[in-house]
Amino acid sequence: MTTLEIMRRAREASRAVAAASGDVKNCALLAMADSLEVSTPAILRANENDVKKAKGTVSDVMLDRLTLTAARITAMANGIRDVVMLPDPVGRVLDEHVREDGLSIRKISVPLGVVAIIYESRPNVTSDAAALAIKSGNAAILRSGKEAHESAAAITKALQTGLRAAGLPEDAVLLVEDTSRESANELMRGVGYIDLLIPRGGRGLIRACVENATVPCIETGTGICHIYVDGAADFDKALSIVENAKTSRPSVCNAAEVCLIDEKIVDTFLPLLEERLTAHEPPVELRMDERCLALSKRGVPASETDFDTEFLDYKMAVAAVSGVRAATEHIARHSTGHSEAIVTEDGEAAAYFTAAVDSAAVYVNASTRFTDGGEFGLGCEMGISTQKLHARGPMGLRELTTYKYVVVGNGHIR
Amino acid sequence: MTTLEIMRRAREASRAVAAASGDVKNCALLAMADSLEVSTPAILRANENDVKKAKGTVSDVMLDRLTLTAARITAMANGIRDVVMLPDPVGRVLDEHVREDGLSIRKISVPLGVVAIIYESRPNVTSDAAALAIKSGNAAILRSGKEAHESAAAITKALQTGLRAAGLPEDAVLLVEDTSRESANELMRGVGYIDLLIPRGGRGLIRACVENATVPCIETGTGICHIYVDGAADFDKALSIVENAKTSRPSVCNAAEVCLIDEKIVDTFLPLLEERLTAHEPPVELRMDERCLALSKRGVPASETDFDTEFLDYKMAVAAVSGVRAATEHIARHSTGHSEAIVTEDGEAAAYFTAAVDSAAVYVNASTRFTDGGEFGLGCEMGISTQKLHARGPMGLRELTTYKYVVVGNGHIR
Repeated sequence: MTTLEIMRRAREASRAVAAASGDVKNCALLAMADSLEVSTPAILRANENDVKKAKGTVSDVMLDRLTLTAARITAMANGIRDVVMLPDPVGRVLDEHVREDGLSIRKISVPLGVVAIIYESRPNVTSDAAALAIKSGNAAILRSGKEAHESAAAITKALQTGLRAAGLPEDAVLLVEDTSRESANELMRGVGYIDLLIPRGGRGLIRACVENATVPCIETGTGICHIYVDGAADFDKALSIVENAKTSRPSVCNAAEVCLIDEKIVDTFLPLLEERLTAHEPPVELRMDERCLALSKRGVPASETDFDTEFLDYKMAVAAVSGVRAATEHIARHSTGHSEAIVTEDGEAAAYFTAAVDSAAVYVNASTRFTDGGEFGLGCEMGISTQKLHARGPMGLRELTTYKYVVVGNGHIR
Repeated sequence: MTTLEIMRRAREASRAVAAASGDVKNCALLAMADSLEVSTPAILRANENDVKKAKGTVSDVMLDRLTLTAARITAMANGIRDVVMLPDPVGRVLDEHVREDGLSIRKISVPLGVVAIIYESRPNVTSDAAALAIKSGNAAILRSGKEAHESAAAITKALQTGLRAAGLPEDAVLLVEDTSRESANELMRGVGYIDLLIPRGGRGLIRACVENATVPCIETGTGICHIYVDGAADFDKALSIVENAKTSRPSVCNAAEVCLIDEKIVDTFLPLLEERLTAHEPPVELRMDERCLALSKRGVPASETDFDTEFLDYKMAVAAVSGVRAATEHIARHSTGHSEAIVTEDGEAAAYFTAAVDSAAVYVNASTRFTDGGEFGLGCEMGISTQKLHARGPMGLRELTTYKYVVVGNGHIR
């Protein structure tokens, strides 16, 4: 099928999903989960082909992400079943206003329509994204990375069987067949077919979407996250927060990349931080500005780009700043607007920081690693938005809806 | 000043506006209103120059829109004073969640940052847009149409005097000096400087934004609005609703352009409609499909494009459809997603219509002319969004804000 044909079919199918009741959508999700498990042998065969082709061309981490097992497929199915338990985001009355003349104006949440997701090689994204789209009343167009295409096709086929069993059109979840860059471009420019495009991937993909997309697009997942250790910080909290934010999972977007230290405490705090992070296994490489470097035993000089780099690795840029105000100014210049934290016992500094920092999540005395749909109580997430329009931070089911005004009169004219 | 310099200054000033309390913003708005009135002579002089230059090159309607009087300037100032009375859209706690481990997660409304508005020749938009931006804690970049540039410059200068008097940076409201198309393009591509671009104008401008903008953009104001007169309609209500929606102000986006009539009643309803609309002064030209034309005395045949045209005039396209389902299908193909109405006494037909029609506002037994920030109780409006992301329908103050998560812990790590 051409990508244009896929967009046409998804648009058509989106009407049926939008009209489906919460019960019908939940039945479909349960059938999708069951079908996924029943299809385990077929999915594993397809995945074997993907893995065989990918071997030698991608890193071991990538290869591990790509590889499916029966247990992983069951986990995917259970992920869909978890979505069933979440409240229906559609049909909520967001606002209600009855005018004096009796005209009733209700603002009601409705599905967006067709949501397209461009992602990379993790096969579980195929089922996660499809489940969130269906639950929120949308049709999904999925464009998997080339490396995972056979797996994604087998997963999609299983999900479609589930949709059909519940009486929903199987076109409500469609996988783009063309894995060349051209199909991504077609999605980006699918005005009239696509209501929201979510690129989930590296900086190159996000930038391509910003540059080329004519459909509404939400940027996700680039995180140059900062932790500012204030002069009034509790050092124990600061050390464990920086360590956790940097090392608990360095490859994810909510991991910290930069530590800013108040110059009032830099000479006492930096040696402790250095001890803590170089004792970590594996040790963290600290890339320091001049001020810190002079106080350091094992730091290396930061290059010009280190304060603008998402390392996604056991590396951290470290600089001294002249207080909370300077910290927020540094953050305004270098942050991607994802998550930033202050560690302080000074309420005024905390208030200044949370007000002045313009990021999706701003933390006081907590690790940036909490920026996540599950941790925030949304139950799931489609990605983490780093833009300000429509959705900011973790995107749950509500962020996959829009609203309309339903206005009921009795012959009202203006 | 170059447009780039303007964007830089607005970004810088936006921080001060975002940090300003509700009281400071309201003081600034009152000072802006006063300054506008004090500057009446200078504004009128500038406006005279604009009007002189425009004479002969624009229509009389345009010329009237362009022309200012002392009364119109007072009305603009009072418009700003009205905004003072509205609740502050910033700092609302949208959601709050304290986890079992004590981590507190609050979702709080915050300003977008820098809002740019590209508009045409109505000088009052300059003060309206600036007032809404300041009230919602944003800096505004205004790009007026060439015809109104001197007026807009004089108005902006007055507004800046007010800002300064209240201690806010005058760069919080800046007018783009370059009136060539290039400056609009620079705004559309001002990534990092502009958080939201709102084009207010004709289809050409909106399309240029969709095509070229790399900054987040909200499409506004194109309305091909439909009224479907169902088989179970009350004819009196239907006639007055269609007449009102078509003729009360045909040049605005919430005016109706298309009337769809259930074929079950078309032979009785169409003659009445024709009588009503041709008796109107000025009469409405009805452009009909074949079915209606055969029943009509004064209708003219509709061309292929008439059902996709925003006439903004005393013209209306009329077609017979085979019931509510066919009506919603016609609307799905031809609507711009602005406002559509059904006239019916049948609750099921009404429910089907409001569920199936995917537009910003869907009406039952009321005129589409109510789609307006003031009428909907928002107190004001920056435009009417016809897209689904972030804001749909009338955009009030809340739609000029985004949110951030403020997360407070006590050394919490994950």
